[in-house]
Amino acid sequence: MADGSDDIQALVGLMARLPGLGPRSARRIVLHLIRKRAGQMSQLAGLLDRVAVNSRECVTCGNITDRDECAICTDPARATGELCVVQDVADLWAMERGRAFGGRYHVLGGTLSALDEIGPDDLGIPALIDRVEREKIREVILALNATVDGQTTAHYIADALADSGAAVTVLAQGVPIGGELDYLDDGTISAALRARRRL
Amino acid sequence: MADGSDDIQALVGLMARLPGLGPRSARRIVLHLIRKRAGQMSQLAGLLDRVAVNSRECVTCGNITDRDECAICTDPARATGELCVVQDVADLWAMERGRAFGGRYHVLGGTLSALDEIGPDDLGIPALIDRVEREKIREVILALNATVDGQTTAHYIADALADSGAAVTVLAQGVPIGGELDYLDDGTISAALRARRRL
Ligand SMILES: [Zn+2]
Ligand SMILES: [Zn+2]
Repeated sequence: MADGSDDIQALVGLMARLPGLGPRSARRIVLHLIRKRAGQMSQLAGLLDRVAVNSRECVTCGNITDRDECAICTDPARATGELCVVQDVADLWAMERGRAFGGRYHVLGGTLSALDEIGPDDLGIPALIDRVEREKIREVILALNATVDGQTTAHYIADALADSGAAVTVLAQGVPIGGELDYLDDGTISAALRARRRL
Repeated sequence: MADGSDDIQALVGLMARLPGLGPRSARRIVLHLIRKRAGQMSQLAGLLDRVAVNSRECVTCGNITDRDECAICTDPARATGELCVVQDVADLWAMERGRAFGGRYHVLGGTLSALDEIGPDDLGIPALIDRVEREKIREVILALNATVDGQTTAHYIADALADSGAAVTVLAQGVPIGGELDYLDDGTISAALRARRRL
């Protein structure tokens, strides 16, 4: 495309590979940014750069943070003895938006999957068991997606924690079948958390 | 959201305001970038910064470029005497992807609109008339959107160029390649029927 800037085309190409975007939406975004460049574009570049440099996984829970341990893990008010297990950081964010949970998290980073050859060790489930014991967790809330792999993973973790002394609960029905947490409105998540039951 | 980084939330907020994105898609993109940060995120930050610093409008045609005059305006092979008038740089890019046009462009930056109080001067139509005369343009191709405002603008420009000696043409209307009749609006079908040709 002869528009005098390889950088613009490289930017469109990079944007087009982001999740949910394609060439057309990437072009629209880049043109939008160029029109407003005095403000948004430099700001976006600066933030991306800072986040790229600073972001890492919390060593305790797997949340994304700019320190070794995230703000949730270091907040003494959240040492409630409740641990919420989520598949992904996006799900942790969704739970936080619901504002119904006051404990801490454990991010698995995926679900068990025979097809993709993802086993308990890949998800750090042994580390989760250790953590439950070490932190004397009273309740483990499994907030996994209502998919086959999510539910398989929930049952595996419940079995593995059977002798830990911690109660294992799951979010209430209300999460639609096949539904993913990150798609739910905040009220649904709060209601499902309040009505959680023993697995 | 207590995830230990205001920058991440600021980045999500900025992304969510981009055209076609919202909070959810912005969160997905930011998490995706953080996971791949070694590669994509710094690269994206660098490109955004370079494009923000370097991009400007071609002084002749309004295309986006990193020089005073864009690669199309400075390419002697494209001095064909044909000038294609488009509403937006996105439309110029679309024409270039079609690889069917070998002349130069004029980007209006909008259409006439009584509602939004956009008149001929706002779109630089006097400058277009001057340019047609100065560059001895033989044919002006109006590649404007098939909307009411687009067509109003096309007719206004055709009238304004009536004494210029340049032929004024418009893109043919019809069934798009691969288009199914059942999915087309009635206006398109009528236009295609009126412009029917012998096979
Ligand atoms: Zn943490
Ligand atoms: Zn130009």
